Amino acid sequence: MEIETQRVGFFVSGLQWLKGIPLNAGAAVVGFAEQARKIARDDPRKLIHSLKVGLALTLVSLFYYFQPLYSSFGVSAMWAVMTVVVVFEFSVGATLGKGVNRGLATLAAGALGLGAHHLATVTGKTWEPILIGLFVFVQAVASTFIRFFPRVKARYDYGVLIFILTFCLVSISGLRTDEIVDLAQKRFSTIVIGATTCVVISILVYPVWAGEDLHNLVAKNMDKLGNFLEAFGDECFTRPEGVRPALVGLQAILDSKSSEETLANFARWEPGHGKFMYRHPWKQYLKIASLTRHCAYRVEPLNAYLQSETQNLQAPQEIQEIISRMSTESGKALKELAWTVQTMTRPDSHESNLRIASKNLHSLLKSDFWEEQTDISLVIPVAAVASLLGDIVSCVEAIAEAIDELSSLARFKQPENKDEKATSCFSVVVDDQVKQESKSSAVEILVV
Amino acid sequence: MEIETQRVGFFVSGLQWLKGIPLNAGAAVVGFAEQARKIARDDPRKLIHSLKVGLALTLVSLFYYFQPLYSSFGVSAMWAVMTVVVVFEFSVGATLGKGVNRGLATLAAGALGLGAHHLATVTGKTWEPILIGLFVFVQAVASTFIRFFPRVKARYDYGVLIFILTFCLVSISGLRTDEIVDLAQKRFSTIVIGATTCVVISILVYPVWAGEDLHNLVAKNMDKLGNFLEAFGDECFTRPEGVRPALVGLQAILDSKSSEETLANFARWEPGHGKFMYRHPWKQYLKIASLTRHCAYRVEPLNAYLQSETQNLQAPQEIQEIISRMSTESGKALKELAWTVQTMTRPDSHESNLRIASKNLHSLLKSDFWEEQTDISLVIPVAAVASLLGDIVSCVEAIAEAIDELSSLARFKQPENKDEKATSCFSVVVDDQVKQESKSSAVEILVV
Repeated sequence: MEIETQRVGFFVSGLQWLKGIPLNAGAAVVGFAEQARKIARDDPRKLIHSLKVGLALTLVSLFYYFQPLYSSFGVSAMWAVMTVVVVFEFSVGATLGKGVNRGLATLAAGALGLGAHHLATVTGKTWEPILIGLFVFVQAVASTFIRFFPRVKARYDYGVLIFILTFCLVSISGLRTDEIVDLAQKRFSTIVIGATTCVVISILVYPVWAGEDLHNLVAKNMDKLGNFLEAFGDECFTRPEGVRPALVGLQAILDSKSSEETLANFARWEPGHGKFMYRHPWKQYLKIASLTRHCAYRVEPLNAYLQSETQNLQAPQEIQEIISRMSTESGKALKELAWTVQTMTRPDSHESNLRIASKNLHSLLKSDFWEEQTDISLVIPVAAVASLLGDIVSCVEAIAEAIDELSSLARFKQPENKDEKATSCFSVVVDDQVKQESKSSAVEILVV
Repeated sequence: MEIETQRVGFFVSGLQWLKGIPLNAGAAVVGFAEQARKIARDDPRKLIHSLKVGLALTLVSLFYYFQPLYSSFGVSAMWAVMTVVVVFEFSVGATLGKGVNRGLATLAAGALGLGAHHLATVTGKTWEPILIGLFVFVQAVASTFIRFFPRVKARYDYGVLIFILTFCLVSISGLRTDEIVDLAQKRFSTIVIGATTCVVISILVYPVWAGEDLHNLVAKNMDKLGNFLEAFGDECFTRPEGVRPALVGLQAILDSKSSEETLANFARWEPGHGKFMYRHPWKQYLKIASLTRHCAYRVEPLNAYLQSETQNLQAPQEIQEIISRMSTESGKALKELAWTVQTMTRPDSHESNLRIASKNLHSLLKSDFWEEQTDISLVIPVAAVASLLGDIVSCVEAIAEAIDELSSLARFKQPENKDEKATSCFSVVVDDQVKQESKSSAVEILVV
């Protein structure tokens, strides 16, 4: 009986679903168009990239159109089309990396495949297929295993894949055709032509540089955190009803690791461009990004607090000012650091924001507030916020050090004022004594 | 002069580098072998996977060895080899996803390409190449743009790539050969043969299920956090010198998002296997993993504290016990939840660990400790740890709710004792009243 009811239910819902098809199809088309418009508006480079791929494919398909071209390459022209489809990536670095991988792997595997073929033919007709089979098996096992090596996976994964493919095709084809050298040669030249087409178009027509994207992403994430900390400093005690500064994109900062690593891997393939030289210290960006993420772990609870529905923090005026100042100055320091990275200029600032933040942390500890208060529900929230802010100050100090390293590795522009430069090579780094004090006090206060 | 010195310097270091080559080469080989052994020992499935790829490639290359097979497929046999190389992935889900994508995309694009070819030939010899060129361009632009859609990118990226490739090859080849239908048919069948070989071998020979990996990863991460919290509860006040429980792999938990999403995407392709049915609620695992990560953000400072060189927390015995208990019971609750997920059994526990943790939070607030203490350097660290633990308790509650949802979506086994089941469908969820109390008090204490 129950099954019967279920069946009727299925039937009815099935009918409703059928009726809904024209409606759903219409809605789907509208939704599709809207999504497409949104993607194109958010990042017009994606639309341009699509046009670039279309252009490259149309260009390499000319091999088929013109008799002189076709007669010299024949069916091998297919490999140019295949290369364009699989090699043309969004950024120059990714395209170049795939192109170089494909070209070199084809060359190496082609040569080895020809060698294997030659070795096998020498042994005679009976042993030839057995030897070739053995070569193919051993090579496939070894190469597939090498793809698991982390360093290979990061930079040469595609190359090893193409190596396996080409080795198999060349050595096996040898069983069936005698023109194997000619075939390998034609394929290699069409692959080089396809890859070159991709690289040239991707560099000449509105290039998308992975390195520049990484550079901007790292600076933008620091800037976002800095903005939030500034707003938090203003609002944590006197939060106006209804208006709550939220950190939009915090989750993206927390989860940014894999996209940053991908960008850094691509960036390493890119030639010098704009303000970046070849072999720009992209790894240092990853270090800065990792420290920024650690800072974001501490900012996240502050953000959660501002978004929650609870009452404001309460503390005497003196403490309010100290805590607000700590947050505001950490925020300013982060924004200044973001600016340093973005403009690649060692900053020319008069007084260190971080130093102010550290000093505030210090005076916070010495305040009488803590000893006078007896209402625990007032003390603990303030202590928790202060604890997080103290951690954030240490994080920002670490970021400043990493950016100082970056500024010497990447030879950032010097500030105009030579005297400034002489006294401090990176003005946002707190002077040692204050830093020691703030560190030990941070440890006492913050424990966590 | 300076340049001269530099040159000599380069020359000397160049000589040293040359001398080092044989030594370096030896060291590189040893390092390589060691790394290979380590990878194979850490996860023997990687070695097995390599052997499986070798087997599949050897099988499809039989097309070239035997005359009857070769005479029916000819050079198209190459496509079987290519398919195996690019489709065979580590997990069943990834292989199946790529195989299905490749098969369906080839079919669809082949049909469309034939249609385009037919349309173009109807218009006559002059217009044919122009029309084909137009089709190729428009199709490439549209398909490349569609690859940027997040949903397409996650599941069908490879399919769209193959769609572009096949459409171009089929429609362009039409310009040069009349046997285009025969060609398309042969290619499609060899691709299906190659993909089927991969899928069959990947399922039958020591299968690696992405879904199972995701399941284990999510449970293991919770278990790790739980173990650490238990240890923290034991050690935070009475830390023995030299022995510090560290949370190994915490950074991996914090950065686990992208690998979990990849596994979930693969898992959705997999048929039912072991204890998982087809369409197992993999998305819910992502929700649990995300909550676990949020819990890890709060655990990270506790870990940093235990690793730092500072003095121990100090507080009267009563407070020590309450805080230790909170940490230990949160840890037990997390481990219990990990066990629930791992065994897919609704737990049959007598008393809720989380309930104890919440109650402890409550009594912590009411303690006289806070009002009696006047030494701020003692109060604040304890307050900060308590604050984090309070947040952790809320996180664990949220995880428990998500696992409760999972247990009904995936129909976890019922506990043996029917009475238990009737009173609470998921015993680690705290009863509502205590939960409300703990939430509001958490908000007061924890603010952050």
